[in-house]
Order: sequence, then C-alpha cells, then structure tokens
Amino acid sequence: MVLRERLKKLQQEISLQKLDAVLISKVANIIYLTNYAGFSTEEREVFLFITPKSQFILTDGRYTGAVKKLIPHFELVEISGKRKLKEVLRNLAQKLKINKLGIEENDLRVNEFKLAKKVIKNLKDFKFHEHRAVKTPEEIKLIEKACEIGDKTFEFILTKIKSGISEKELRYFLENFIREQGFEPSFKTIVAFGENSAVPHHLTGDRKLQFGDFVLLDFGVKFKNYCSDMTRTLVFGQSSEKQKQAYEVVKQSQQKVVECLQKKFKSRGSPIKSGMTQVVVRAADLDKIARNHILKSGFPSIPHSLGHGIGIEVHEHPYLSSNSKEALKEGMVFSIEPGIYIPDFGGVRIEDLFVIEKEGVRQLTQSNKEFIEL
Amino acid sequence: MVLRERLKKLQQEISLQKLDAVLISKVANIIYLTNYAGFSTEEREVFLFITPKSQFILTDGRYTGAVKKLIPHFELVEISGKRKLKEVLRNLAQKLKINKLGIEENDLRVNEFKLAKKVIKNLKDFKFHEHRAVKTPEEIKLIEKACEIGDKTFEFILTKIKSGISEKELRYFLENFIREQGFEPSFKTIVAFGENSAVPHHLTGDRKLQFGDFVLLDFGVKFKNYCSDMTRTLVFGQSSEKQKQAYEVVKQSQQKVVECLQKKFKSRGSPIKSGMTQVVVRAADLDKIARNHILKSGFPSIPHSLGHGIGIEVHEHPYLSSNSKEALKEGMVFSIEPGIYIPDFGGVRIEDLFVIEKEGVRQLTQSNKEFIEL
Repeated sequence: MVLRERLKKLQQEISLQKLDAVLISKVANIIYLTNYAGFSTEEREVFLFITPKSQFILTDGRYTGAVKKLIPHFELVEISGKRKLKEVLRNLAQKLKINKLGIEENDLRVNEFKLAKKVIKNLKDFKFHEHRAVKTPEEIKLIEKACEIGDKTFEFILTKIKSGISEKELRYFLENFIREQGFEPSFKTIVAFGENSAVPHHLTGDRKLQFGDFVLLDFGVKFKNYCSDMTRTLVFGQSSEKQKQAYEVVKQSQQKVVECLQKKFKSRGSPIKSGMTQVVVRAADLDKIARNHILKSGFPSIPHSLGHGIGIEVHEHPYLSSNSKEALKEGMVFSIEPGIYIPDFGGVRIEDLFVIEKEGVRQLTQSNKEFIEL
Repeated sequence: MVLRERLKKLQQEISLQKLDAVLISKVANIIYLTNYAGFSTEEREVFLFITPKSQFILTDGRYTGAVKKLIPHFELVEISGKRKLKEVLRNLAQKLKINKLGIEENDLRVNEFKLAKKVIKNLKDFKFHEHRAVKTPEEIKLIEKACEIGDKTFEFILTKIKSGISEKELRYFLENFIREQGFEPSFKTIVAFGENSAVPHHLTGDRKLQFGDFVLLDFGVKFKNYCSDMTRTLVFGQSSEKQKQAYEVVKQSQQKVVECLQKKFKSRGSPIKSGMTQVVVRAADLDKIARNHILKSGFPSIPHSLGHGIGIEVHEHPYLSSNSKEALKEGMVFSIEPGIYIPDFGGVRIEDLFVIEKEGVRQLTQSNKEFIEL
C-alpha cells in the first residue's frame, strides 16, 4: 500500500538522520502521508509525530471521526483547549524517550517552535518537502489527468472570449467549467486583459475585453490532490507586430529550454544510476537559457523564475530559478514558464508542465501553442 | 482615509511597546493594512516592515506593478533570488537603526525567524492580529453584507435539496450560487448528510441524500475581503423524535448564550468606558452556558469551542472556548455555534454571527432557525 511505503521510507530517513522523531506540520506533507485533504492549511490544527517505529496524528475533536475512519494507520492523540500541543508533545517525548526531534523549519511557526523547545531541547531542521520532488508513476498519472482536464478547459474557454466580457466573468466561466465536472481549480485563476497582462500575478478584476488586447490565462486543476498549472496568452482580434514578436520570443525561449533538457537526458541517460545521484541538469542553467534568449531578443528579463515543481502543492521543489542549487532528476515534474512583461503594453507568458523520464523529457499539458488571434 | 488611520494606530502601538519596528508576515494583517488581497497565504512572498515613521512592503518582482499602483502608501523593496529577505532586512535594519523588532510569532516560520535573528538580535512577539478583533462600523457593514448574501444562498439551496443528490452536488449548487453573483465562498463549504453530520468538520463527499437524513450546511461568503459564516441543519423528509429533540436543545443552547450576552450588555452598558477596558463578559463563561445546557439535556458535550471571531479571516480573535481568557467587547463580531454530534446517528449545529453594539447584541445572519423538515 502506497501510504505505508511512504511512511516506511520516511521512518528510514528519520533513523538515517539519527533523529528520535519528527514533527510534520506542513499540510501538503500530511496529505502525502495520509491521503486526507480535510485539514485547513492555515489553522494549525494538525501535526504528525513520527518515530522510526510508531506514528501519531495530533488533532482536535472535530476530526476524531474522520481520522479514525480514514487515517487508521496513525494513532490519534487529541489536542484540546485543556490538553494543548505542548502537553501532548511532552507526554509523547517522555513516553517514547525523544531527545532529538526533526521539525519543518519552513513551516513551523515561531510560537510552536518555542513550545516544542521547552519540551525537547534538541530540534533540528528536517526537509521532508524535498522528498516529494521525485514522483512515482502513479503520481505522474494523477498530474497528467489534471493536465488533461486543464487542456479541455482551455478548449472550452476559447468559446467564451467575447468583446466586452470582463476578466472576472471569464474567470467565472473557466473555473465553473472545472467545478461542474466535480474538480477544483488548483489555485485562483489569473485572467489578465490588455495592459493588465504586464503584471505577472495580476489580480483578476473588472477590466473589459477590447479589440487588440492580450488575453493571459493562468490556471490549473486539482485531481485527487494533485495539481496542474498552465498559462496561455492570445490576442483578441488582430495583433500588432510587437505582440506577435513577444509571443514568438517567449515560445522560442521555452523551446530552447526543452531542447537542452531533451539533449542532456537523451545523450547521458538517466541521472540516477545504480543508486548514485548524478547531477545532469542544473535548474539554474535552464533559467539562464530562457532568460538570455529573451534579453538577446531585445526584451526585458523575466521578473520571476523560470518554473517550479508541482504535485500536491502548485509550487514545490524543484525550483527553476537563477539562484537554485537543485538538479533535475528523473521523476521530477515541473513547469517551464518564460514570460515578457512590458508596462502599459502587456505581457506574454507560456507555461507547460514537463516530466523527466528515462526516455527524456515529456510535456504533460497538451494545449495548442501556436499564436492565436481570436 | 481608513488605511492611513490603521497604519497610524499600528505605528503608535509600535512606539508604545518600545519597538523600533515590526515585521508583519500574516497575510490577513497585510490585507487589513493595504486592502490588497492578491498575495498567497501560503507562499511567503510578502512582508511589511513598519517603523513608527516609515513603512515598507517587501515582495518580489511579480508584484511590482500591483504594489506601485495599489499600495502607494508603502515604499516597495524588492526581494529576489539575488536580494534575499535576509539581505533586505539587514539593509533596512542598518539604514533605520533597528535594534528591537516585533515579529508575529504565530505566523513567522522558524527559518524566517532564524534569518531575522541573524540580522536583528532583539526579536519580540507582536500580537497585531488581536487588534483586528474590534471592528469599525464600516467593517461591520461589510460583514453584514456578506451575511445577507449567505442568507439568500440558504434560501436558494433549500430549493435544490432533493432525494438522491450527493453532498458534492449540493455543495456545487451552493457555491455556484455565490460565485454567479461575483462573490466567493469564505471557506470550503461543508455539506454533510445523515451519519456524516456527526463529524463536525466532515469532508463533503459522494453520500447521497436519503429520506430521514440530517442535512448540515456550513458555509460563508466573502464580500470585499470580509467573511460571513453560518450553519443550518434540517431533516430531509420526516424527522425522528431524537432528531427533533437534538435540534431544539442546540437551538436553546444558542438562545441561552444570546440572552446572557443581551442581559449583561444592556444592564451594564458598553464595556469600554472613557478608555478603560472593563471586562463584562468572559468568552469562557459563554462556552460554559452552552455546554452545560447540552449536557444537562442528556447529550454529549460539544467537541469544539462555542464560537470564534470573524472578519478578514473566517476564524480570528476573539475565541469563545472553555480555556479562552478573552473578554467580549463592543465592536466584536463572532459566531455562536453549539452542536450535538452522535456517531452513526448524526449531528446538529446551528451557527449565527453576532455583533456587540452599544445597545446590546445584534444577530447578523438572518436565516430561519425554526426546525425544518423538507
């Protein structure tokens, strides 16, 4: 069973790092280990406490029924106003003789850290989230399915792009298409018209569509806890030379990155050989390839990184940025999303998801990338 | 202007607490101070750095355009892969001579805390989020409007409750009604049928509606960044004696709490007299009133707290729980939501929002609370 295997692997890692236990607080990691996605990502209502030989889930009474039924492989320890996290940790630490505890420093809050510190002196950063960067074939299939629904959504939304429609209205149609089928957007859809497309994370608003506008759509789908993410940019009506040129440069920039990846993985084979992790492609190099092409073509540099890993979270390891120290490996799934943004003029971004496989790089999102004038 | 006033009040508080500056990281607090809700609550992409006399917003290049346009009263400092948070903090600390920095310990991550600590030795907890507990009349109006849309949604959804519909389908209709009007659910709607209603935070699923089932609906609306939240429980078809009894006990339990509040605030006047904060009603006492009534009636105790404050966040200060040390004051808006949950049988929860005003307590959600057999 997948969940047991993930837990076992984590428990081996705990031993390997000579920790007595780890406290998992990041909700995406809790979903990964339990398949249960009912906890809030903001309310600090659940923790996993895992030793090499035992595993506990710490949560409050509202979840008792759900945990007993859906997460039976974890022992439930209830947190309540009267039995607070600190006390629960103290009891576990005493009972299980925990002296050295791994914590997720990029997720744990300072107040939680301070109370854990009062109970267990030796706290050490434990980077579990990076373990999720390499996906299993089953996980890749779920992401593929999410991409497939995304592709259908793009096809559908093209029929809804009409003069005078507002960004918010178009977003409603797009997200509703996803929800009607029983799925969910993996993040809040970005719809940006005209000059608004020059803001990479534009907050979808009431701007109405006009002839000659860029239409930038950045959206994703969640399928069984796994996310897709894609961006397409098109022109409503007739495009200008500059619009078309910006589009082609962005597209080439993405192609150049893919070609580089393709070549490296094809010629040198899988980076994982008999257990050895052989670094083949540095994420930072890819960022540079895309960025240089855009600069060389006379456009401004990308004001964000080239891409990001994706899975249970929309943004997760590996990060494809200029200062990334990560290497891309077989099984990793990530976006490649160069963009050009010109204030008051508009912006173009093209984003697709890719997976690295034995045979090379494979694109998961399949939507048309030819320049569209609608 | 409201935003300037909020900022000024915060800056006075910084001086009062003898801090040189504060680092605000909680996104709800950033929305409160900027009215800009475009930042992710999970991605750690924005911070406010505020001294008694100056204010900075620290974020990355994707937001440059939005910040310049929509948050002009803050000075923008860009964070990037090359100019990381640590360096930005170091520069600000040196330039502004910051020796003592307030941080939000319930929001700041351990890794952020550690890097801030390397730059500024003296870090102190700053509880800004509690400042939002007392609302202005303008904020109350926004919550009222959100409640109004919620009431309309409840009226609408009653027409969609049919034999054989699934929880997920009903949730789709409910949330779509909100979205069609251009609003958003303030949190993921809970729809629980039959025995599933016994799980206070049931994860809406594929259970189909049957004759005699409880139907529990817990949902809210976001209107201009302010949330509503309400729960109604009804019976589909004919109810059993026990169902009806559980309902009446929950309803009485809520009534008793409201009566207590009403009496205290009417007889003793506003708790805030000439600047003095006079404790009139302890949140913990209200929790006890509701809990005792349910226990006395022969039902199990509420497995959650009685209620919570609401505003920019669905759950915020004040918390109405048995171990709460908070006092309810004029201007506070909160839920009162007792419940009875019986495994394999089902559960009842009734939740409404209330505001404390000079004249007493006023209910903001207006939906019917008579026992419904549909």
